[in-house]
Amino acid sequence: MAAAVVADEVTVLHGGVVVTMDGGFRVFRDGAVAVAGDRIAAVGPSADVLSSFPRAAATVDLAGRILLPGFVNTHVHTSQQLARGIADDVDLMTWLHGRIWPYESHMTEEDSYASTLLCGIELIRSGVTCFAEAGGQYVSEMARAVELLGLRACLTKSIMDCGDGLPPNWSSCSTDDCIQSQKDLYKKHHNTADGRIRIWFGLRQIMNATDRLLLETRDAAQKLNTGIHMHIAEIPYENELVMRTKGIDHGTVTYLEKIDFLRSNLLAAHSVWLNKPEIGHFLKADVKVSHCPASAMRMLGFAPIREMLDSGVCVSLGTDGAPSNNRMSIVDEMYLACLINKGREAYITGTTNPTALPAETVLKMATINGAKAVLWDNEIGSLEVGKKADMVVVNPLICIANIVYCMRTENIESVMCNGRWIMREKKIVNLNEEEVIASAGKRASDLLARAGINLPNRMNYL
Amino acid sequence: MAAAVVADEVTVLHGGVVVTMDGGFRVFRDGAVAVAGDRIAAVGPSADVLSSFPRAAATVDLAGRILLPGFVNTHVHTSQQLARGIADDVDLMTWLHGRIWPYESHMTEEDSYASTLLCGIELIRSGVTCFAEAGGQYVSEMARAVELLGLRACLTKSIMDCGDGLPPNWSSCSTDDCIQSQKDLYKKHHNTADGRIRIWFGLRQIMNATDRLLLETRDAAQKLNTGIHMHIAEIPYENELVMRTKGIDHGTVTYLEKIDFLRSNLLAAHSVWLNKPEIGHFLKADVKVSHCPASAMRMLGFAPIREMLDSGVCVSLGTDGAPSNNRMSIVDEMYLACLINKGREAYITGTTNPTALPAETVLKMATINGAKAVLWDNEIGSLEVGKKADMVVVNPLICIANIVYCMRTENIESVMCNGRWIMREKKIVNLNEEEVIASAGKRASDLLARAGINLPNRMNYL
Repeated sequence: MAAAVVADEVTVLHGGVVVTMDGGFRVFRDGAVAVAGDRIAAVGPSADVLSSFPRAAATVDLAGRILLPGFVNTHVHTSQQLARGIADDVDLMTWLHGRIWPYESHMTEEDSYASTLLCGIELIRSGVTCFAEAGGQYVSEMARAVELLGLRACLTKSIMDCGDGLPPNWSSCSTDDCIQSQKDLYKKHHNTADGRIRIWFGLRQIMNATDRLLLETRDAAQKLNTGIHMHIAEIPYENELVMRTKGIDHGTVTYLEKIDFLRSNLLAAHSVWLNKPEIGHFLKADVKVSHCPASAMRMLGFAPIREMLDSGVCVSLGTDGAPSNNRMSIVDEMYLACLINKGREAYITGTTNPTALPAETVLKMATINGAKAVLWDNEIGSLEVGKKADMVVVNPLICIANIVYCMRTENIESVMCNGRWIMREKKIVNLNEEEVIASAGKRASDLLARAGINLPNRMNYL
Repeated sequence: MAAAVVADEVTVLHGGVVVTMDGGFRVFRDGAVAVAGDRIAAVGPSADVLSSFPRAAATVDLAGRILLPGFVNTHVHTSQQLARGIADDVDLMTWLHGRIWPYESHMTEEDSYASTLLCGIELIRSGVTCFAEAGGQYVSEMARAVELLGLRACLTKSIMDCGDGLPPNWSSCSTDDCIQSQKDLYKKHHNTADGRIRIWFGLRQIMNATDRLLLETRDAAQKLNTGIHMHIAEIPYENELVMRTKGIDHGTVTYLEKIDFLRSNLLAAHSVWLNKPEIGHFLKADVKVSHCPASAMRMLGFAPIREMLDSGVCVSLGTDGAPSNNRMSIVDEMYLACLINKGREAYITGTTNPTALPAETVLKMATINGAKAVLWDNEIGSLEVGKKADMVVVNPLICIANIVYCMRTENIESVMCNGRWIMREKKIVNLNEEEVIASAGKRASDLLARAGINLPNRMNYL
């Protein structure tokens, strides 16, 4: 149960309901976790753990609170945080051409830093300790923010070497430059911030990637033993275009399988429009999926999540970016995932199936499956001896009958990442939250003005 | 703008973003509302309202907070609050026969009071000032709780005069007794608690109602000038049974139209499985609908909400009961309504339509449409001179770009009903919240034990 550690460096959190999410789904009703440095030194009943560390430097009485592994958010556009609310209730073309592209292409490095700080605060507030960046422009600024926030992250540059309609000041780069710039970022930032930051390869989507970029990314990521993050099969139009231009019978996944691109280090965001053979391709290659329920409902459609899980595909949870989501809470995504995937059954079977995606499955998606999706499950995703101390303290407040259904963002009380508290009793530890919000607000209005984005009034403002 | 009132009884709330939800959708960026007794005496720009009441007894600086009409939750089972979490992820028969019926049929009057208090606290915390009870057993206990809570409510007894499979200690009553018991409740409680309580007629669902009960309920409610609350077209089985036994070509609504039951004082909960002609029947009779998104996703399916709204049917929002919802927040229901009704378009058009159910429509559903659904829009549902002072103060905290998408339950800071604060800076005013929660917890475990409800462990508890 306990690893060999220097006892007087140990902190014991005890007296809580410890939900381990380990292989045996163990829950200790009166449980404890001992933390030594950045790692978990013991997990078990409070009495056992306390007696194993009589000289612990500190003990924290959880007083019946729930202790969970830190949540893993596997698809976040940190650079879109200043764009919250700029693209509500508009069609897809307005979304992209009228709002998001002008916004992203007018962003400065300092904007990206401010956006990542603001985003990080919201991630922490919803219990996230590790996230996978979906791909932005200024990875060094993201890394600077993540280092300060104390979070764990797989950072990714948004890469495009072809495609029509991109903003004039934001042209695609050559295939070689695309690959090289990511290798440079890897060299500069991978495994920095006490090992909390990893650099992944990014591919925006198939419509902005040549075959050479796809395959060289595959090889470069494999050589560096890191992951690839890519938006896949988001909308029917994407599949139709791929079918028309590539001469295949169904969508992006079929094509990626054909060119032998699919690997176990691929994190496929959204994956909404997949048919049964394509789910089989994902399973065979052990591709990981990031399901983003709110974003899917707003912009994309219902992904075949139950079918993917039933077949054995590793499905995790993501929030996507602020303009696709607004709430930016993985806690809300858990609730949504449970609900919409039950509702979706109505279309398949003629009536809902309340047993589809039960709460424990969704909790797995947000923890251990998330860890697998970011290729880090040897160190995070569950509370087990030897793993990194990434944990969330949940205060049940008004009786939580079921973590997934009843928990709200406001129940997240404290968050530890890599053995350090990054939120303690609702206070963000490493930075001044008010300052970040004020600065981000100013930057957001400046940026919208610079990008020429004017939002229509939807009520009669006087 | 201002009604004639005694100035020294007036409280002016000023310096807020006042979202009136009036016919002109007016929003005052720096707005104020004057409250005299239980009514709104003025609404307008802060400077104007303040200068109209120089001798106001009190002024409250909202400091940029958002002021909204109190939300109307049009479908709540207050007596199910102690059952939160007892029926997650189970099929419908287990839900009803193994969990909810044993629970409800073993409830005492005191349990119902405790359940309503706990439910009321959660309603207030999510900004609800008025709710429509979906139908429980002990209306007098509900009324006692609502009087203390300070809320506004349309209370309803759950009525059944036929139907198979009811619990042995909970048999259906005779048609005459059903009608008479509701008339008695009306006489005793209607228009009590300073006019905050109204008594409605209840009908559980068509499978538990004879034609005579339906038609006599219609006539009795019309005579007393009050409403009828009924679950309608919840599941495909209901429609199939009605088709089979009543010799009609589609579902409950078709049958209710045929027997001339539909009236403008009918509040139809759920209304999921309606076809186009049935939407037409609702429109013609001006039947009101309560859309409960979370409950629909879990148990029922996707209601044709966009089609109903497009055709002109008044659709409002409800949470349903705690075991169908868990979160019990109308704020979350607003978010869900926006999302799932966009997602639903994917099945109809092949791709989502992000313009479906825009935020302002959903805000209408939770306010003025809710007021219409409970037949109270002459006095609540918008901030207008002469209406009752039912209001919610929202603290934007982390920048709220869009009320419907970004607001979380925790943003609700203060709530006023009938001119009195019932939550002030997150503190429930009229009762001791901790005592209510503790008492409810005890009652819930006792009740489950008494009803013989054993929940399986879904993880490995040690």
